[in-house]
Amino acid sequence: MAIVLFTDFGAGDLYVGQVKAVLQRLAPSMTVIDLLHDAPAFNVRASAHLLASMVGCFAADSVFLTVVDPGVGGARSAVVVQADDRWYVGPDNGLLSIVGARAVKGDCWRIVWQPEQLSATFHGRDLFAPVAATLAVQGALPKGWFEHAGRLNVDFGGDDLAEIIYVDHFGNAHTGIRAGGIAHEALLAFGELRLPFARVYSEAAQGAAFWYENSQGLVEIAVNCGSAAQLLRLKIGDGVTWT
Amino acid sequence: MAIVLFTDFGAGDLYVGQVKAVLQRLAPSMTVIDLLHDAPAFNVRASAHLLASMVGCFAADSVFLTVVDPGVGGARSAVVVQADDRWYVGPDNGLLSIVGARAVKGDCWRIVWQPEQLSATFHGRDLFAPVAATLAVQGALPKGWFEHAGRLNVDFGGDDLAEIIYVDHFGNAHTGIRAGGIAHEALLAFGELRLPFARVYSEAAQGAAFWYENSQGLVEIAVNCGSAAQLLRLKIGDGVTWT
Amino acid sequence: MAIVLFTDFGAGDLYVGQVKAVLQRLAPSMTVIDLLHDAPAFNVRASAHLLASMVGCFAADSVFLTVVDPGVGGARSAVVVQADDRWYVGPDNGLLSIVGARAVKGDCWRIVWQPEQLSATFHGRDLFAPVAATLAVQGALPKGWFEHAGRLNVDFGGDDLAEIIYVDHFGNAHTGIRAGGIAHEALLAFGELRLPFARVYSEAAQGAAFWYENSQGLVEIAVNCGSAAQLLRLKIGDGVTWT
Repeated sequence: MAIVLFTDFGAGDLYVGQVKAVLQRLAPSMTVIDLLHDAPAFNVRASAHLLASMVGCFAADSVFLTVVDPGVGGARSAVVVQADDRWYVGPDNGLLSIVGARAVKGDCWRIVWQPEQLSATFHGRDLFAPVAATLAVQGALPKGWFEHAGRLNVDFGGDDLAEIIYVDHFGNAHTGIRAGGIAHEALLAFGELRLPFARVYSEAAQGAAFWYENSQGLVEIAVNCGSAAQLLRLKIGDGVTWT
Repeated sequence: MAIVLFTDFGAGDLYVGQVKAVLQRLAPSMTVIDLLHDAPAFNVRASAHLLASMVGCFAADSVFLTVVDPGVGGARSAVVVQADDRWYVGPDNGLLSIVGARAVKGDCWRIVWQPEQLSATFHGRDLFAPVAATLAVQGALPKGWFEHAGRLNVDFGGDDLAEIIYVDHFGNAHTGIRAGGIAHEALLAFGELRLPFARVYSEAAQGAAFWYENSQGLVEIAVNCGSAAQLLRLKIGDGVTWT
Repeated sequence: MAIVLFTDFGAGDLYVGQVKAVLQRLAPSMTVIDLLHDAPAFNVRASAHLLASMVGCFAADSVFLTVVDPGVGGARSAVVVQADDRWYVGPDNGLLSIVGARAVKGDCWRIVWQPEQLSATFHGRDLFAPVAATLAVQGALPKGWFEHAGRLNVDFGGDDLAEIIYVDHFGNAHTGIRAGGIAHEALLAFGELRLPFARVYSEAAQGAAFWYENSQGLVEIAVNCGSAAQLLRLKIGDGVTWT
C-alpha cells in the first residue's frame, strides 16, 4: 500500500517535504511515492486528465493525495473519491472528476473533519495529508470525518480533452486524447500543421514531428531527436483536432 | 522517526542520492524526507531563517541533516545541535543558530569523529550523513564522537530577518519576519512600494501585490494570479521594512 | 538492500513516479534511492562514465535500474550486468559497459523475459522495473528470465574519457578523467585555457578557474564563487587535455 502524491507544489520546492512530515507522523510505515509535483498549476482540467492517464499503474488500494487548487482558502469543498478501489483526497474543483467519471465503480464524500490548525493557503499539508494518512492506515473512511456526497460539485465528465495537457522535459507534448480508438491513418492538426502517426521515434525522420500513442495511452506530439514544444511552439492549453 | 534533509545540493542534482546511499547503509530502516535541496546557496543567514520556519511540522525525535556550507574544506567546525528534542547535524557557520536560539531548551556539541575517507568538498556525504545516521539509529550521541561545546561559534541570534529569504516556484517571496505579532494594518515597504495585508490570494485584486502570513508563519509577498518575484523584481537578500 | 535509479527521465517529470509504482507493487519493502534522473540524455557514453564514478558509495547488494536509452523501441537488447556484487539492469547500448569493464569480477545476461504489456517507449517502467524489483526481492536471477551472454554488445571499455560528462547546478563541470594518478602540477587545457590544480575552492582566488579532484574521484573544473560552466562556456561533450 502506498500514498501517492500528485500536486503543483514544485518538485524542488519546500512544500512537499512539509506534507511528508505530516504523513510520516501519522502513517510512519507507509510508502510515499512522488508521482508529479509539477502538474499544470492554475489548469485544473489539464491536471485532471493527466492524473487519470497514470493511475492505472498503481496498486488497487493506493491513496492519492492530489492538489492543484488555485481556489484554496475560498468556498470550494474538500472531498474523498473512491474509484475502482483506489482512494483520492483533494479539492472539489474538478481535479478528481475525470478519474471518477471513468471508473467502473466509484463514490465520493465531503470532508467535514477540521484540523486544529488550518493555514489559509496550505490545505495539502494541514487538511489533505492528515486525511490521506488516516485513510491509508485505517484502510477505510474514519467515522465522523466525512459526509456522503455521491457526486462532485465540479464535474468535467469523462470525455477526452483535445488540448495539450502536459509538456515533458524532452519537449514532448501530451494531449488529453486517449489513443485507443484512433486510426493510425489519422492526421493530427495543430494550427496549419498536419502530423502523421509513427509507432516509435526511430520510425520518423530526424527533426520530423509526428503523433504516437505514449506509454500512458495518450496521443502525444513528438519530434525525433528534438523538442516538439520548442519547434512547434506548443504549450499547455493549445487545441488540436483530427483531419 | 525520520532523517530530514535540508541542503543546497540541488533537487535534481547527483549529490542527494550519494548522501542517501550512506544513510541506507548505516540506517536502513529509517525514513528519509527531502525537506529542501534548493536552500539559498552561499546565503547561510537566509537558509538558517528558512530552516527555522519549517522544523515545527516534524516529529520531535527527527534528525536533521543540514548543509549550506560555502566554507566546506576550510576551518569551520562541524556540530550537532539539540533544540526542543530535535537533532540537527551540520556546519558551525550560523546555519543552525536560529533554530538553536529560538528553542526553549537546547545544547550543542562539536563533532570530533573523523570518517576513514573524507573528501575535501562533500562533508554532507562523508561526515554529516554517517553522524546523522548513527544518531538516528542510536537515538543519542555515540560515545567519543563529540565534544560538548554549549554554544556555537557563529550565532546569528533568534531575531527576525527583514529580508527576502526564499522565492518559491510560484514567484512568492518569503521574508524572515514572523507574522505573529504584526498588525494587519501595517504596510510592508519594498523600495517605493507599500504593500497591504490580505488573508488569502482571492482577497486581493488580480495582479495586485500584497503581504500575508504564509503557512510557515512568515510574512510573504505575493501577487494574486501572478509572480511577485517577476513583477516586483524581488530576489533573496533584498531588504523590506514596515511603515 | 536498495534499488537505485539512474535515468534521464527528469527529476521533476512524471516518469519516475510510474517506475516507482511498479517497484512498490513488486518489491514493497525495498528502499528506492534516486541517484540521478538528469543523466546526460542522448549521451550514453558520458552517462556511463558518470554512473561508474558513483556506484562505490552504494551497498554491495544494490540493484541499479539504469536508463539512458535513446534507442528504446529499436533493436538494442536489454541486459543485466553483475559487477563486484552489485546488479545493474538496463539497455545494452554501452551504458553499463564502464561499470562492467572496471569491475574486478563481473558477468552479464540478456533479458529474454517479456512483460504482458510493453509500451514502445517506456521500457524503464514496463521491462527494467519488473526485472529490477524481482532481482532485488529474490537476490538472484529469476529462472528462465535470462540468457547468459558473458559480454555486452556495445562496450566502451574501461578507460577514462577526456571530456566534460556532467555540469552540476553550481556550474561545476565533471570530466570523465579519474584524478587518482594525475600530478597536481599538471595543467588542464580547455581550448586556450590552462587551468591549475587547487585542493579546495578557498585555495583558488575568487573568480579564478581551477581543476580539482571531486568527491567522486573525477577531475572537475570549477570557479571559486562562480559558475565554471557559464564563465568558461563549458558543456557536456567538450574535450579537455593535459599540458
